[in-house]
Amino acid sequence: MAGTRAWHLKSRPSGMPDPGNFELKELALPSLEDGMVRVQNSWLSVDPYMRGRMNDVKSYVPPFEVGAPLQGGAVGKVVESRAPELQPGDTVFHMFGWREQAVGRAEHFTKVPAMHVPDHQWLGNLGLTGATAYFGLLRVAEAKQGDTVFVSAAAGAVGSAVVQIAKAKGMTVVGSAGGEEKCAWLRELGADFALDYRARPIIKQLTEAVPSGIDVYFDNVGGDHLDAALAAARQNARFAICGMIEGYNGGEPPALRYLMRIIGARIMLKGFIYTDYMSEMGDFYRDMGGWMASGAVKARETVQDGIESVPEAFLGLFRGDNIGKMLVRL
Amino acid sequence: MAGTRAWHLKSRPSGMPDPGNFELKELALPSLEDGMVRVQNSWLSVDPYMRGRMNDVKSYVPPFEVGAPLQGGAVGKVVESRAPELQPGDTVFHMFGWREQAVGRAEHFTKVPAMHVPDHQWLGNLGLTGATAYFGLLRVAEAKQGDTVFVSAAAGAVGSAVVQIAKAKGMTVVGSAGGEEKCAWLRELGADFALDYRARPIIKQLTEAVPSGIDVYFDNVGGDHLDAALAAARQNARFAICGMIEGYNGGEPPALRYLMRIIGARIMLKGFIYTDYMSEMGDFYRDMGGWMASGAVKARETVQDGIESVPEAFLGLFRGDNIGKMLVRL
Repeated sequence: MAGTRAWHLKSRPSGMPDPGNFELKELALPSLEDGMVRVQNSWLSVDPYMRGRMNDVKSYVPPFEVGAPLQGGAVGKVVESRAPELQPGDTVFHMFGWREQAVGRAEHFTKVPAMHVPDHQWLGNLGLTGATAYFGLLRVAEAKQGDTVFVSAAAGAVGSAVVQIAKAKGMTVVGSAGGEEKCAWLRELGADFALDYRARPIIKQLTEAVPSGIDVYFDNVGGDHLDAALAAARQNARFAICGMIEGYNGGEPPALRYLMRIIGARIMLKGFIYTDYMSEMGDFYRDMGGWMASGAVKARETVQDGIESVPEAFLGLFRGDNIGKMLVRL
Repeated sequence: MAGTRAWHLKSRPSGMPDPGNFELKELALPSLEDGMVRVQNSWLSVDPYMRGRMNDVKSYVPPFEVGAPLQGGAVGKVVESRAPELQPGDTVFHMFGWREQAVGRAEHFTKVPAMHVPDHQWLGNLGLTGATAYFGLLRVAEAKQGDTVFVSAAAGAVGSAVVQIAKAKGMTVVGSAGGEEKCAWLRELGADFALDYRARPIIKQLTEAVPSGIDVYFDNVGGDHLDAALAAARQNARFAICGMIEGYNGGEPPALRYLMRIIGARIMLKGFIYTDYMSEMGDFYRDMGGWMASGAVKARETVQDGIESVPEAFLGLFRGDNIGKMLVRL
């Protein structure tokens, strides 16, 4: 029975994780039986939502177990198959990441559509990142041409896709990010306003940038950003709540001074996960594929090399190390 | 030119209002011209939302002006008319309350439907109170048979209507109120669980009462109650945000420990005002009229007598003095 190197959860983080919470060790892989495939991973995704699964709390996905291998988005190539629907050489997307090889039933691996894009895009704009941006902006928040849209963590993987989709659809876009380099990139992407939240309170910058307010808020951050969006919301504003990275590592719960505006301004807040919209993935591939082909949506990655770098890449998400999608290349 | 006694805003409250913020004095009334009516008020409504208009902030209705007469819901009889659509003796609902007489253009006064109910009901279950409960529960939160509904301030005017509408529609109802007398009344109204929030933390009581969670939350309170509802929400729960009385008089903004559950549980929060649904008032009168005739929805009032008692009645809302609708009878 062959094995693979895989990152395991050694202990549950309390607050901000540190490298000692993770352990790279040999994982035994099952032998290949009928209906199964073996996949060599080439790209691994690290995503902020994984922090939540490291806590021992009930959520929409079960928590990671201490001592067990971690899981995350990955792209790889089939190297051995006993399933008719997948052939050696096929590129597949799957959730057995944070490891070098994966073995499992074929239905857990998705052959990527024939779209002639670099493999790692299936973890970015054509993967869960892009789908989260697309469905959150267009379905949850029902953003439409002419709307003014505020996006937090706009230089991140999801945020930068939201900025570009919104511009492709004819919206006015305000993005926030930490630092001038990220803000400069947001302006390159077409953002009408790029706010450096490290420079001054975000609520002041937002209300100065768009004094007439916002129609849509795409929330990746929570806390002060959510409060600023509540303060700036126009009548019937819609907030798609995608993430609250400020709160993932504990600390004080957010005090929302402007929460009461939800009544007078009839604000709608709705949480979502992109998998709620799996039945509409065809629309997503069609639209996002078109925008990528035309250059309306561009990809940018922050890449770390080697399986050893996975925890550092993950921890970097919470320090704001990444511009665009954070990936590990094997 | 005749006058009337009317309550004026003497100064803006800071935090909890006190009687010194209000002044009863003579208000000159315009002379009756074509298209105008004179109305003798018989019942005045005091409502928590009026506190917001006493602050000098932009909201869905303009703030009250210092030195100017206050306004609020009222019912009265036409005593003089120069408008063909209203005759002396007609009972009308209008927003020129907190005064004994009102003079204005006929279009600002609504003749009540011919439904043979006591006049004060047009300020309660058949007025803005009942309409707020009806549209918030059934339209905003889309509550339906079989849902488990949590209502805060459930012994108040709006809350007690929500409890009864929900029971009439076959829902399981959890109501919270302050003190055993109010809780006993909630059980009389058919609430499946009546939680005294003064006895123990509401979050503990709620999760014990309905361990499988809630589908709908009707929020009149904000703060700890909203946090408890976030903690207890089932997948795709809907929150109708009607009021946040905990925050009306200032104090610390609410810290929501369970706000992040909005993502995993796909919770939807939406603020509203009943006037958003004016086009559906026909449905409301039909349903609420039917429930009142059958006894499915009962009215209860806490009544103060005389124009002099208006500020005390209003301040009593924030002390929880009222069971059911707080009214002033002239």
